[in-house]
Amino acid sequence: MDEPAQRARWSRRSMLAGAAAGLVSPLVVNGSAAPFSVEASAQARGKLRQVTIYAEPVEGGLVGYGLGPGQATIPGPLLEIYEGDTLEIELVNNTDQRLSIHPHGVDYDTASDGSPLNASFNEPGETRTYTWRTRTARKAGGFWIPGSAGFWHYHDHAMGDHGTTGIARGLYGGLIVRKVGDPLPDKQFTVVFNEMSINNKMAPDTPMFEANHGQRVEFVCIGHGNQLHTFHLHAHRWADTRTGLLGSGDDVHTRAIDNKDLNPGDSFGFQVVAGDGVGPGVWMYHCHVQFHADGGMVGLFLVRNSDGSMPAGAQEAIDRFHAHQHETAQQQSSSTHAGHR
Amino acid sequence: MDEPAQRARWSRRSMLAGAAAGLVSPLVVNGSAAPFSVEASAQARGKLRQVTIYAEPVEGGLVGYGLGPGQATIPGPLLEIYEGDTLEIELVNNTDQRLSIHPHGVDYDTASDGSPLNASFNEPGETRTYTWRTRTARKAGGFWIPGSAGFWHYHDHAMGDHGTTGIARGLYGGLIVRKVGDPLPDKQFTVVFNEMSINNKMAPDTPMFEANHGQRVEFVCIGHGNQLHTFHLHAHRWADTRTGLLGSGDDVHTRAIDNKDLNPGDSFGFQVVAGDGVGPGVWMYHCHVQFHADGGMVGLFLVRNSDGSMPAGAQEAIDRFHAHQHETAQQQSSSTHAGHR
Amino acid sequence: MDEPAQRARWSRRSMLAGAAAGLVSPLVVNGSAAPFSVEASAQARGKLRQVTIYAEPVEGGLVGYGLGPGQATIPGPLLEIYEGDTLEIELVNNTDQRLSIHPHGVDYDTASDGSPLNASFNEPGETRTYTWRTRTARKAGGFWIPGSAGFWHYHDHAMGDHGTTGIARGLYGGLIVRKVGDPLPDKQFTVVFNEMSINNKMAPDTPMFEANHGQRVEFVCIGHGNQLHTFHLHAHRWADTRTGLLGSGDDVHTRAIDNKDLNPGDSFGFQVVAGDGVGPGVWMYHCHVQFHADGGMVGLFLVRNSDGSMPAGAQEAIDRFHAHQHETAQQQSSSTHAGHR
Repeated sequence: MDEPAQRARWSRRSMLAGAAAGLVSPLVVNGSAAPFSVEASAQARGKLRQVTIYAEPVEGGLVGYGLGPGQATIPGPLLEIYEGDTLEIELVNNTDQRLSIHPHGVDYDTASDGSPLNASFNEPGETRTYTWRTRTARKAGGFWIPGSAGFWHYHDHAMGDHGTTGIARGLYGGLIVRKVGDPLPDKQFTVVFNEMSINNKMAPDTPMFEANHGQRVEFVCIGHGNQLHTFHLHAHRWADTRTGLLGSGDDVHTRAIDNKDLNPGDSFGFQVVAGDGVGPGVWMYHCHVQFHADGGMVGLFLVRNSDGSMPAGAQEAIDRFHAHQHETAQQQSSSTHAGHR
Repeated sequence: MDEPAQRARWSRRSMLAGAAAGLVSPLVVNGSAAPFSVEASAQARGKLRQVTIYAEPVEGGLVGYGLGPGQATIPGPLLEIYEGDTLEIELVNNTDQRLSIHPHGVDYDTASDGSPLNASFNEPGETRTYTWRTRTARKAGGFWIPGSAGFWHYHDHAMGDHGTTGIARGLYGGLIVRKVGDPLPDKQFTVVFNEMSINNKMAPDTPMFEANHGQRVEFVCIGHGNQLHTFHLHAHRWADTRTGLLGSGDDVHTRAIDNKDLNPGDSFGFQVVAGDGVGPGVWMYHCHVQFHADGGMVGLFLVRNSDGSMPAGAQEAIDRFHAHQHETAQQQSSSTHAGHR
Repeated sequence: MDEPAQRARWSRRSMLAGAAAGLVSPLVVNGSAAPFSVEASAQARGKLRQVTIYAEPVEGGLVGYGLGPGQATIPGPLLEIYEGDTLEIELVNNTDQRLSIHPHGVDYDTASDGSPLNASFNEPGETRTYTWRTRTARKAGGFWIPGSAGFWHYHDHAMGDHGTTGIARGLYGGLIVRKVGDPLPDKQFTVVFNEMSINNKMAPDTPMFEANHGQRVEFVCIGHGNQLHTFHLHAHRWADTRTGLLGSGDDVHTRAIDNKDLNPGDSFGFQVVAGDGVGPGVWMYHCHVQFHADGGMVGLFLVRNSDGSMPAGAQEAIDRFHAHQHETAQQQSSSTHAGHR
């Protein structure tokens, strides 16, 4: 792989160093804090960034992407760049099946398409480089063509001709392309509604996201599989825009939402202030398709007190979720489902 | 329940009085005119409003919310407030099952969450107060966080852990939070695509909404259950914005629509002028999923002449709908469905 | 049919003449170039336009709309007018079943509704005229009501009470209503996700759309049937607006997308520059519901070199698509599906 000296190389080490220097925004991988991030300063734009990703087996017959050998998670690492950056991904296939990495929202040539159609994949054991480019909006013929900014995602497109097997097993993750000036969050959570699971987990094993009251949190929501899904978060709402925020108080015609369709291949992101106007506590996020919620597509968003302590009643709610909710939901779902068919 | 003298209490009586005084906008409950409404004047903002809602059995094994004992309807009453208002709901459970009321779009603390997770529900026979707060947009860190305005909804979240049974039986309704200055409609209709029904009815028993040619009508559309739905209204279209209207004639990039996804937990509202540019007559509204329309997810929007008289051909169309359409649809659906499987 | 001399009559002949004179934008019917179009000049607005459409059997038990006897295609001709125009369609029913033509987005009275409810259909062998009107946005009560511009569609609404049989067999097509000043494309493609097919075809028989690198292409996407669908195009993205473009570079809150829900009755359109930023090559477009892609809802977008020559590797990709992909997909789908149930 070509690697000129001026290229900034992403690595676990440099990320940690950056974080320590206060130059990076903290990112979250699979619900737990992780040091993978980028500089937010304007002069960092337009850089070539590089990362090595390892596709590896994960316990339970699953497969995940990770930033180092033995570090695969489901979802994979949340990748974050700025409009203008180029991201070069060295993908190492440590499985015994053909696979790839296919992004949404960014520019790539056919060799980086990640599809068998374009012979763009890694054979078992093979290492291959995929290049993703981004750019800002530009004028063309009196109108503007949008830039690359968005809450996107990446996934396998070659284990199965369209990645069906790879996605089902966990080969997916979030990809954020920011505009310079976008507000940076204190916390980030990736929520993937994949078939009948959240991040390939079902309640009560779904991720519990945590933040302190008043922290700015960012949800990156991704849909996969074959089912209809709608993402609902209790007690928080956001604008149905690129960022979940508004440009001015005069945006009277923009819809605010707290429930949004999240179907296969869809993705969106938004920022909210944890517990804003509603206080700390344990809040549900879930698929609003009733049988999906009953079947386990429910997770918790724990908003702690602003000093990080547990709010009154929160532990009891968490205990209820772990002790009783899932079992009841399972039983109800199977009996209701039987009656429905 | 704490009830200071200065609180404006919502009641059937005060609503009627208000309507007579011309201070209120007429609202519609379940397709028929109802006197439940609020003052539209700016000085009414920021008030604490109170309402008592009764959850009660409804004929046919259903359950509904109502504004008084024996008044339960499906959907429940259309609740309407302004950004800045607080709504305190005293919910009386006149059924023999656990249930609650859970809103979308507004602010509430965990005690008003309406979920078993937060032990927020009414036991059979119990009365419990739920408090919903609202607010306007505000600036935070260079961006704006949206206010509470929207076409929202409320539903049970405790008959079944996620309200699956309660919703299936009819425990749902519309909730409008307006911005000051929003245009008020002459008529309002609530349309809930709940599983394979409209408002738990199937054609030809679905609601026939009525307005005179030229009246401004507002549709509040809500999705529930487990199925994919798309709401289509014949001969009328609206902007895909918070209100269905545009801020200026220069909104050239806003999409106009006449068909919109309406999946579980989704809601939207819009205003159109009845028969605008197309004249009076009987217009269909229906789910555009073909087997759903064939199976009975079809209703009528009768636009009368501007003087309230019946337009030519309208009665014949209504008669066709009642006499033939449903039977044919049922037969076709079952035979087509068989062929499809 | 009333036909004053001043009416501009649409015909295959006049379209060809117009195209030769450089007055028209080239349109595409069913993936192949066709001469059906309109003048783009501002003085052409507000005209009454007329077209005769023939509904006829198509090989394989299908039915299509066409611009002349024996010319039926699936989808039918892409109709294009400007806000302010009226389109009068003389529909000839050359089949032995009742059918109609029902549009989305435009104005029509009950006689042109296309529904059995309003007795608006063609008996077998019958010719009937349907009139569609359009208009620009206008102010009403401090707000604006949107005009007719949009990427709409038309379909049968009478073969089966709601057109279920007619749509399943191919009676559908695209309808564009433009605003004056909208950028015109070099190429247009209509993509209809109809039940488990694209334009009633499955891979590898789905349309291969072609353009040269740098040409402005327009996709018109329509959903039909009973299934959940999401449209994904590789290596190209667009703004989630009426046109896929932005009004200014300051539209920082508008979402860019490359995957969009396309459910029954939905439609949207967008323009992209072929191969922009990614180069020529063979790019997939497909339903992102995994089993739908595996089952054949995949097509190709061939971006040739700017001189029209084939890019390196393109023929090999096309050959792979035709030789192997479908068979593999079919096998995988059936086995995976079995495992899923």
